[in-house]
Formats: sequence, C-alpha cells, structure tokens
Amino acid sequence: MSKDGRHHFVIVGGGLAGSLLAVYLGRKGYRVDVYEMRDDIRGGNVAGGKSINLALTRRGIDALAHAGLAEQVLASAVPMKGRLIHSESGDTSLQPYGKDDTQLNYSVSRAGLNAELLEAADSHESVTLHFNKKCTGVDLDEPSVTLADTVTGVEVRVEADVIVSADGAFSAVRARMQKLARFNYSQQYLEHGYKELEIPPGVAGEFQIEKNALHIWPRRSYMMIALPNLDGSFTCTLFWPFDGPFSFDNLESEEDVRRFFEEHFADAVPVMPTLTADYLGNPTNPLATICCGPWHYQDKVVLLGDACHAVVPFYGQGMNAAFEDVLVLDACMDKHKSDFGAAFAAYYSERKEHVDVLQRLCVDNFVEMRDHTGSKWFLLRKKTEKMLSKIFPSWYVPLYNMVTHTRIRYVDAVRRARMQKQVCALVAGFLVIAVFLLLFT
Amino acid sequence: MSKDGRHHFVIVGGGLAGSLLAVYLGRKGYRVDVYEMRDDIRGGNVAGGKSINLALTRRGIDALAHAGLAEQVLASAVPMKGRLIHSESGDTSLQPYGKDDTQLNYSVSRAGLNAELLEAADSHESVTLHFNKKCTGVDLDEPSVTLADTVTGVEVRVEADVIVSADGAFSAVRARMQKLARFNYSQQYLEHGYKELEIPPGVAGEFQIEKNALHIWPRRSYMMIALPNLDGSFTCTLFWPFDGPFSFDNLESEEDVRRFFEEHFADAVPVMPTLTADYLGNPTNPLATICCGPWHYQDKVVLLGDACHAVVPFYGQGMNAAFEDVLVLDACMDKHKSDFGAAFAAYYSERKEHVDVLQRLCVDNFVEMRDHTGSKWFLLRKKTEKMLSKIFPSWYVPLYNMVTHTRIRYVDAVRRARMQKQVCALVAGFLVIAVFLLLFT
Repeated sequence: MSKDGRHHFVIVGGGLAGSLLAVYLGRKGYRVDVYEMRDDIRGGNVAGGKSINLALTRRGIDALAHAGLAEQVLASAVPMKGRLIHSESGDTSLQPYGKDDTQLNYSVSRAGLNAELLEAADSHESVTLHFNKKCTGVDLDEPSVTLADTVTGVEVRVEADVIVSADGAFSAVRARMQKLARFNYSQQYLEHGYKELEIPPGVAGEFQIEKNALHIWPRRSYMMIALPNLDGSFTCTLFWPFDGPFSFDNLESEEDVRRFFEEHFADAVPVMPTLTADYLGNPTNPLATICCGPWHYQDKVVLLGDACHAVVPFYGQGMNAAFEDVLVLDACMDKHKSDFGAAFAAYYSERKEHVDVLQRLCVDNFVEMRDHTGSKWFLLRKKTEKMLSKIFPSWYVPLYNMVTHTRIRYVDAVRRARMQKQVCALVAGFLVIAVFLLLFT
Repeated sequence: MSKDGRHHFVIVGGGLAGSLLAVYLGRKGYRVDVYEMRDDIRGGNVAGGKSINLALTRRGIDALAHAGLAEQVLASAVPMKGRLIHSESGDTSLQPYGKDDTQLNYSVSRAGLNAELLEAADSHESVTLHFNKKCTGVDLDEPSVTLADTVTGVEVRVEADVIVSADGAFSAVRARMQKLARFNYSQQYLEHGYKELEIPPGVAGEFQIEKNALHIWPRRSYMMIALPNLDGSFTCTLFWPFDGPFSFDNLESEEDVRRFFEEHFADAVPVMPTLTADYLGNPTNPLATICCGPWHYQDKVVLLGDACHAVVPFYGQGMNAAFEDVLVLDACMDKHKSDFGAAFAAYYSERKEHVDVLQRLCVDNFVEMRDHTGSKWFLLRKKTEKMLSKIFPSWYVPLYNMVTHTRIRYVDAVRRARMQKQVCALVAGFLVIAVFLLLFT
C-alpha cells in the first residue's frame, strides 16, 4: 500500500484493456502505474506503420459510457449498418446488422481509441503512464514485476499491491502463472492466417466503396473483409490458409498476387492501387484462441482481456469482451471493497463460462462469414429471423443481435437462441402437419 | 553429423521413454547422448524415496520385445489377472482383465524398469549416458541444448543433428516449442490429486492382500487403488479432490486421517501400519492431461511420450503409449532413412489422432473406475461383454481389451467398440420386438 494509504495497482500493458482499466481505477482513487512495452501511441508512433481498425459494439460502448468516454469515441467512429457482401461476379447486397438504425456497429481506429483512453487515464492525478517498458519478470507472491527499458535496457523491479495483466495474447504475466500447479491453459491456432491490405481514399478524399458497411468477399474456404476508416480509406484483411495447394504459401511474385486477386476479388482490384506491394510487404499473421484458468492469483494478480481469453476476430468481440471484463471487474471490486481476493474470484466466476462460449462462437462465425454469407439459404434464414423479430420483438432476438447489440451474457444468448430455434422448428412441424391434414382429409 | 559420418542424437530425459529410445537408436548405430536431470537410478538413488509401480500392457511389451527386453522385464513383474474390487462393507470380487490367463497386465517397478533400460542403452558402444544434467536452454534452429550440472552448476552447450525431447510432462524442450508461431498446446488439470501410501509385506515377507490383482476401492467421487510390488508390498494411491468440503484439504490431524480411512477403507487399515505418517508426510500431486502439436520442428527436434501427450493414469496407458511412440518412430525412421524431417512428420501424423483419443479415454476411465466398478449394472455389462466375446471371439472385443491387450490403434478401437455397441442395441431391439410379438399376437 502507498504511504498515503491508497492501494497501488501496476497494470502491465497500456493497450485498449489496460488503459480503460487505468481510467476506472483512477476514478476509484487508487494509485496506478501503467507499463507499456511500445512507445507512446499519442505521439503518432504507431507500431507496425498502419493503423488498423476494430468493430465497437454494445458491450464496448457500455464500458466506455461508464467512464464517460462513449460520446467522444463514437464521434470519431464510422457507423456500419451491416455486412455488404461482394459476390465473385461483382454483385453486392447489404445484410443489415440490426432491426433498424439504432443497432449499428462502429468501425474505430485501434490507435486512435488507444490514444484517447491513454489521455483519459493520464488526466487522473493518481495514474502514471510509462512507455518503452517491457515486462521481463514476474514475482507472483511478492507481488512485483521486473521491467526493462526497451531503449536503455535498464531493468527496474516494481512492487505493488496488485499486478494487473493486460499484456495481451502473449502475456508475460500469464506465462508465469502457467507454471503454477493446476493452472489450465490452452493455445489453439487456426490453419488460416491473415494479411492486412488497403483501399486508400479517392482523389478527393472520398470513400471508394460504401462507407457505412463492413465489406465481405466470402469465398467459402477463405474471405477478404474491409472496414472503413475516418479518412476515407478501408483496412482490408485477407483470411486464407497458411499452407497447402491454395494458400498464402503459393503466391510469390507480383504476377501471382495480381492474378489471384483479379480472379477472386475482381471488383476490389481497381480500388487497391498498392495491392501487390502491400501483399508482398505486409506480414501474414496467425490467429489464435487462448483459454486459461483461474484468472487470478490470490489477491495479488489478475488477468484481463486477451491475456486470459484471446479470440479469433470473426465476431468482432475481442475488444468488446475485454471492455466488458473491465465493467465486471469494476462491479466486483465495488461489491467486495478492499477484499481483492474475493473480488477477483467473483470476476473470474462471473466471466469464465461466458467467454468460453464466446470463443466457440468466434470460431463458428468464421465459417458463417466465409461459407454462408454468400449463400441464398443463409439470406433466407436472415430474412426469416428479421421477420420473426419484427412480429415477436420481445421474444425473438437473433443470436447475432444478442451478442452484438445487447449485454445478455454470451452463454445465455446461446441458450436462448437454441430455445428460439426449437420453438420455431416445433411450430413449423405443426404447420406442415396442419397443411397436410387440410389438403388430404 | 559426427566425424565418423554417424548422425548424432541428443535425448533430453533418461526416463522410461528416453532410455528405451536410446536402446533403439543405439541398435541403429547412431551416436546418442542421453542427458538426465536426476542421478543415475542404477545406483539406487531413486528420487522421492519410494519406488512406484506401473501397469505394463501389450503395447509396452511389444515395444520392449522389439528391443529384446520383454522377457527380462516380465521376469521381475507381478502379473495381474484383473481388478479386485473392495466394497465399503469389505466384500471383494475379481473382475478379470481379459478372456483368459493369456490376457494379463503386469505391475512393474518404475525405478527397476528404468534401471534395466538404462543398462541396455549403456551396453551400446555408441550410446553415452549423462546424469545430473538439467536442460536450461534449447536452440531449435541450431539445434542445440544447454545443460547445467545439478551438482557443480556448470553449464555446457551441446549441438546435435537431432534433439529428442523425452523430458516428460513438464518438458523444457516443448516449453521452447510453445513459443513457435502456430504451436498448439493445452494443459488441463483434474480437480482430483493423488497421494501415494503403502501396504508393506507381512512379517514373513508375504503379500497381505491378493498378489495377482490391481486392487480398487471405488467410492464414487473418489477411490484408492493398490498395485503389487515384487517384494510383497503394495503401492496404494488415493485419488481425491484437492479442495472442497470432502477433500485432501480437510484432513489435517492423524485423528482425521484415521477416522476417514476407517470409515471408507476399513478393510485396508489393518494392513497399512504407516498410514497416518505416509498420509501426512507424502505430497499430494496434481493430475494433468497435456496435448500439443506439431510434435517436431523440421528435421531437428522431435517430442516423445509425456512431453507431447501426458495422460492421467486411469487407463494404465501412459508408459505403454510412450513405448508405442518409440516403436512407431523407429518404423518411420526405417521407412524414411536419413530424411528425418519426413520420418518425424510421418510419426506425428500416425500417432497424433490416436493419443488424442487415448487422452479422452483416460479421463473417462476415471469415472468408470471410481463410480461404476462398484455397481451391479457395471458387473452385468462386464459379464455380457465377456459372454459376447466368448460366443463371437473374432467379432466382439470389449474396448478395454482392445486398448490393453492389442495394438489396435486407439481411435480404431473406439470406433469398433461403438459399432459393436450399435449392433448389440439393434439385435436387442429386435429381440424385444420378437418376444412382444410372440407373447401378444
């Protein structure tokens, strides 16, 4: 505890989850030090060169609103009304995200949002931000962390009352916890990787394809998507297997790349002037699901966001679930006051089952996006769902809407969707029998 | 490659799998160095003080036989005819393991078997054994390992053509591979732990309970088992949850321990004179399932046994599956000669699916042993199985027998058991209908 009697939190990782938690803890009056491995993103030093974007949905918006930050974040976001599907022939069709324009997703810049959250954290007198500090050691029992300056190499050891691990999918803190007896841990990679590409703004700064949509080029075993940025550009992501006869492994020359895109994404090629350079220059990254438990060590260490439940990006829920972690952790700390051990245990017990379900949903949604969004049956199902939710608005809510536009917990959403489906199947069965009886008796 | 043109293998870990592989590689004429963290077990320096025992079954026996070692190992093993069930009232009943006395399991001493395998490896001029050498670093690309002498602390770096990781469930080599992009890994612990206890020989050196059996005290949510040792003693293992209202966590005093055993394992207490001292002195150990892939890195590193597929002990297949790894790896190396990359890929592809299935079988068999072996329905099922396998010996083989007494691959065994079950259910259904028709028409 600090000399002034305030508990001292060290947050490892100043990314989206870590910086939002710093805002929450700062508001509670705790002394908080945030240690981020990269440089201060507010100086425009965006790692990797390109700013990528993310879908912000209800859970994330609520967590931002609780810290008074939702309005300003949404002001610099691009609303997306639905999925805009690009068929191989170049036809496009919009599949709305929600029942009406109140149910939108928002495309936000990861770097821009991170900068806003860091700024908000920095405005609390009890919060101090430290950059270029890489966590090289963790003592769970003390608890303390060792931090190396990435510029000078100098190491310092910092003690705290609580270490918060918000250091992402490759968390150093979780790696230490993995060595604890009876710590469950799993990392599972998809066969697919992803590569980011770009559609720049037009000559007058205009959006070259529909601004207010998430674009999908579904091609069954693979797909490309594009999310709009505020400056008129789109960040495209190609999801494709790493290896095999038809994979990232097979395109080597500019000619290979151009031929592949002209064959499968013909309508995108004219708006992607830097395609071959982007393709050959940008890395192919892996996609992992990370699952572990428990998420805390006594009252000393607690895990948050990707550090304890990294998901694949196909439900757009990674950041939103991490922000919801912050909301739930905050509520548990309110309830249990300074009994951090009880608060962390309650947070783990409240969240674990739900993010486990989310992890499966995210993997399943990849199949939906790449295989089904292009099919007529899928469109018919979506239309039936929309009709049902209009006729029975309080009873029928499609699973996607529960996940994206509500804070119904993931496992409850899946249960309710299953129940809705069973009732519909039953009713459909009765209707078929009734029609049969009317016609043949 | 060595100066004499022979490939050089470094085996990290001189336990059961590592020392058997050293025998195989020594026979092939490769230059082999085995680095074991503990002292030479042949000097009687058994880690942990107590020698524990293991069930040796068909797969393990075949792998030993291929190296000409089966006879000598079986000569110092105790044959077990079946499971001897101890009910709470003290009644006992034998459930045979196989169709007759040709289908036995064997209780072997881990330390004794390990010593025999090390001796066999040491007899090859091209195999060198090194003890008290702990692996502290791994370079996958070189490939090389850093080894620290556990007595002097001096570190040396050893290069090789191939590093074999036979360093068990907490493998240092696998921990390094886990950091590779796209390496799948999972460690899952049971809620139960285990504690070893002892039934010593009688005053005249005799076995105090039935010698030729694996004893089980099934108590639904927990159980104790005992395997015979050659010296007339039995090693008992209590499997019980770590925490909760009825768990290891709850017995603290000698009085607690005595009361618990007298209530639940009354017939064992008289033959366990050191019970309370053993219980309070011996550690409670966790039970983990470890799953990963791929099992090799190019043609440079390959994983074996517990290092890539540690299982919980309830099917008695951990050592046997590790020995079968050695058999399969050996066959793949025969087929692909010095193309180690192809040999390791073939070995992984051949084994992975099967040990994945084994891992589920082992967890499921815990439920069978502790919950079902004591029930009348289970006995009836076992008797029906035995009858079917006598009437249709070439068609009906119980799953347990396929896993334990054959080398049918685990996934094929499970598939065949499912098919047998479906046919039996179908036949039973027809019989019920036939009887119904005969009686009521």
